[in-house]
Amino acid sequence: MYLEKMLGKNSGIFITLINKENYFVFQPMLPEVISGSIQIQNIINPIRRLCPRVNLEVREVESIDLERQVVTTSPGLRPVHNEVKYDHLVLGLGNVMNFSQLPGLHQHGFPFKNLGDALHLRNHVIHVLEEADMEKDADFRKALLTFVVAGGGFSGVETAAELNDFVRAASREYRNLNPSEVRVVLLHMGDLILPELGPELGGFADKLLRRRKVEIRYGTRLEGATAEAALLPDGEKIPTKTLIATVPSGPHPLCVDLPCKKERGRIVVNEYLEVPDFPGVWALGDCAWIPDLKTGGICPPTAQYAVREGKIVANNIMAAIQGGKKKQFEFTALGMAGALGHHSAVAQLFGKINLSGILAWLFWRAIYWAKLPGLERKFRVGIDWFLDGILPKDIVQIKTSRSHSISYERYGAGEVIFRQGDVGDRVYSLVSGEVEVVEQLDGTEKILARLSPGEFFGEMALINDEPRVAAVRAVTNVDVLIIYRQDFEALLDHVPGMKQIFDQVMEEHLAEGEAADSTLSKENG
Amino acid sequence: MYLEKMLGKNSGIFITLINKENYFVFQPMLPEVISGSIQIQNIINPIRRLCPRVNLEVREVESIDLERQVVTTSPGLRPVHNEVKYDHLVLGLGNVMNFSQLPGLHQHGFPFKNLGDALHLRNHVIHVLEEADMEKDADFRKALLTFVVAGGGFSGVETAAELNDFVRAASREYRNLNPSEVRVVLLHMGDLILPELGPELGGFADKLLRRRKVEIRYGTRLEGATAEAALLPDGEKIPTKTLIATVPSGPHPLCVDLPCKKERGRIVVNEYLEVPDFPGVWALGDCAWIPDLKTGGICPPTAQYAVREGKIVANNIMAAIQGGKKKQFEFTALGMAGALGHHSAVAQLFGKINLSGILAWLFWRAIYWAKLPGLERKFRVGIDWFLDGILPKDIVQIKTSRSHSISYERYGAGEVIFRQGDVGDRVYSLVSGEVEVVEQLDGTEKILARLSPGEFFGEMALINDEPRVAAVRAVTNVDVLIIYRQDFEALLDHVPGMKQIFDQVMEEHLAEGEAADSTLSKENG
Repeated sequence: MYLEKMLGKNSGIFITLINKENYFVFQPMLPEVISGSIQIQNIINPIRRLCPRVNLEVREVESIDLERQVVTTSPGLRPVHNEVKYDHLVLGLGNVMNFSQLPGLHQHGFPFKNLGDALHLRNHVIHVLEEADMEKDADFRKALLTFVVAGGGFSGVETAAELNDFVRAASREYRNLNPSEVRVVLLHMGDLILPELGPELGGFADKLLRRRKVEIRYGTRLEGATAEAALLPDGEKIPTKTLIATVPSGPHPLCVDLPCKKERGRIVVNEYLEVPDFPGVWALGDCAWIPDLKTGGICPPTAQYAVREGKIVANNIMAAIQGGKKKQFEFTALGMAGALGHHSAVAQLFGKINLSGILAWLFWRAIYWAKLPGLERKFRVGIDWFLDGILPKDIVQIKTSRSHSISYERYGAGEVIFRQGDVGDRVYSLVSGEVEVVEQLDGTEKILARLSPGEFFGEMALINDEPRVAAVRAVTNVDVLIIYRQDFEALLDHVPGMKQIFDQVMEEHLAEGEAADSTLSKENG
Repeated sequence: MYLEKMLGKNSGIFITLINKENYFVFQPMLPEVISGSIQIQNIINPIRRLCPRVNLEVREVESIDLERQVVTTSPGLRPVHNEVKYDHLVLGLGNVMNFSQLPGLHQHGFPFKNLGDALHLRNHVIHVLEEADMEKDADFRKALLTFVVAGGGFSGVETAAELNDFVRAASREYRNLNPSEVRVVLLHMGDLILPELGPELGGFADKLLRRRKVEIRYGTRLEGATAEAALLPDGEKIPTKTLIATVPSGPHPLCVDLPCKKERGRIVVNEYLEVPDFPGVWALGDCAWIPDLKTGGICPPTAQYAVREGKIVANNIMAAIQGGKKKQFEFTALGMAGALGHHSAVAQLFGKINLSGILAWLFWRAIYWAKLPGLERKFRVGIDWFLDGILPKDIVQIKTSRSHSISYERYGAGEVIFRQGDVGDRVYSLVSGEVEVVEQLDGTEKILARLSPGEFFGEMALINDEPRVAAVRAVTNVDVLIIYRQDFEALLDHVPGMKQIFDQVMEEHLAEGEAADSTLSKENG
């Protein structure tokens, strides 16, 4: 936007913006999408409207070649790559959720970074409420009504607060649910949430969230996840179907591949935000390692800084093209604020003035509303907030596509993958670990088989359209690949050789079952 | 809602409502979701709020056993079936889009029936606009900007009108698009659209839509679809990536399986809306074949009738339980209206008064706004309409999940499935028909191989991460199964035996390629 404005009607210079969505998400308001207090569309802004003279390519970047000065983008509806040549390149790649460090998180943790994540989470939360309303099994019901948020920074606290408000308000609309059954657990490694704001405001937020029944667990780190639980240190488990991880984030994969200098995965730039040794390449925002001239340290990866960095980069690019003086980046944060839901927030101004409660909340709203780009959006969000004040929370669940496909799941040792008598709507391939096939007969358990990686299970019930004849339980921690009925049938019918594989697997499993049965009758006899 | 109201606080009677979504969609306003003039959430209403004392099960019905008086629902998060026993059963299953009659429609036609469909279509339309904005190939660009709607009834006409308004307005925000490039084609079998409203209003609608640049093709039926085009009679093709079919609809699969009497797939009921021979079973709405006592014919499957049928069924169930007089169903339609976008509509009252233009549009809005259930929604929709009047159309695209998975596509004889040099991001299995592998060399074409059903292709570029070394073209009409990279790699890595299959396929393809190459060099030599 700055660059476009500076260019004016200059026709010799072209700006191309590559982004994988055609909108800009106003991140600070993302948690409000969960509760629906802002309508989904309104925290996002069409980029074409924000910068009408910029050429927008809605694609993912596949590779960046700093030598050839070319950015290659992913195929769209037609399977061809697109190459964009540049004279100046601005890298604003941000960072990404990096779930690979924690086992099971990738499969069972909900990321919370973009709009799709927020919408997906909202739908999931409504789904577990629907399921809990019908569920008779007390343990499973408890797991359905337990929501775990990992990370006590701004993002984690705001998410936990909004989620807590929403779930407790929504559960009142379910005949068989009681808000007191709902558990929202916030995990934080340190000894006080919102460490950036200091002990006074952190303490305020802590007390406020506790009063609203959020369980805060200090000194506790998320260690991983399975299909059934959040894993804590010392082997503790919190059974849940909803685990939201706001940490950890890591460098963008494209940054990792760049041949320039990096610190902790971020691209090192000089005080002009230029990448040394690569003239015409600039970096800013979360992906850049920017010297803080005021403190001698490094600029924090916050929106406040990023916006000002954008202005400097725009200025310096124009200076490089048209000749002129480059500017150094210098900025001191004005303040920080975090929303706590329900007309409350905490805020700190100029590093010294602390605000909390409704005053901080009004401040929070005023600041972010002012920052929200686009007059039209300001108007829409204003109306949403007004309606949210007078109308009840919305609990409609908007599903846009079938959720079942090929996916991975992780189970902890001892967890049951499926039970005898369950519906056989999917097949499993064991990726790692060991499972056992268990038959319940007259109250006694009989282990029919042990399976190792590379083996298949669960196909019999699906092919014969019968309930599961035996349970399968994880012996160690296991990873499984799951194929749901629809995809499985497509593969079986149309992938040459697939049917033979499965006929053989079934034969073996039948033989094993019979062998086990005959052992059983011998033992009984 | 009627039944709940009649029951009052009577605690001995329980109502269970089984629905696959937790909301009720107000169908008449669905086309407005495409253009965004009503926000997505606002045409849907949480069922729990509409009937708070009803027990809602958000599940799909898997089977209905009229003898045992049991309805079985699909598994939720836990893979177990749920059985619901009943004393009285009301069947309001509606009808379903039945795409199976027309080849390729299932794979390439967009249904337009529920909210997910509307949202999916909106996202797709924005996607093709984004792609067209970047596309250099003139033919492909033209196909991207062509939108075909099949069916000139209420649903088709309203959809075409809204779509036309939206696409033309939105295309102005794209730097490289011109509204004049956009083609919206409406196919209608008869000789005038909106036949239900008679020639005067049909003629009005026809003229109005033409003035807004909708191409209306009469006497033309959709015959099928391929990945590249809508197929018309006499082999004519309209190249398009967006085909919306509002016809044909067929009976719900659950109705088909019921042992009661049916006419054209609909459940025959008597004047009390009871299903003969099955006491306690009632049917209404689009799935019921209801005698029209006024005309001696059959009640039309419209919302106007369905709402009144609900009232009668509620009354008659209460009469059956508590004793009382059953009521016969008698009703005459009050009128019909269809919105044409842009402050215009057509309407007919009491079968004789014709309205058109802005007056009909005001009437349309007033009627449907009054019918929209829930005071809160009325308020929200009112505000949306107000904002739509003063703010520009929204072009944000809300994607909630990855769209690639295992899917089927259809290609017509001569159509190209992929081109030499394309990115190899998916593999194909030939389900039916025949394809040829074509290599372009110095401007001449060389056919490397012909493949028949059960054969695989396209795996080499994917595995080697190279561009396609040859094109594949359909010789006859073909159906293919497509597996995208992510799923393919999961299968290859974790489905035992899969890797061997593909190693063998690759070896064969390599051998074929070499054989063809050596033939080629011999010929050249």
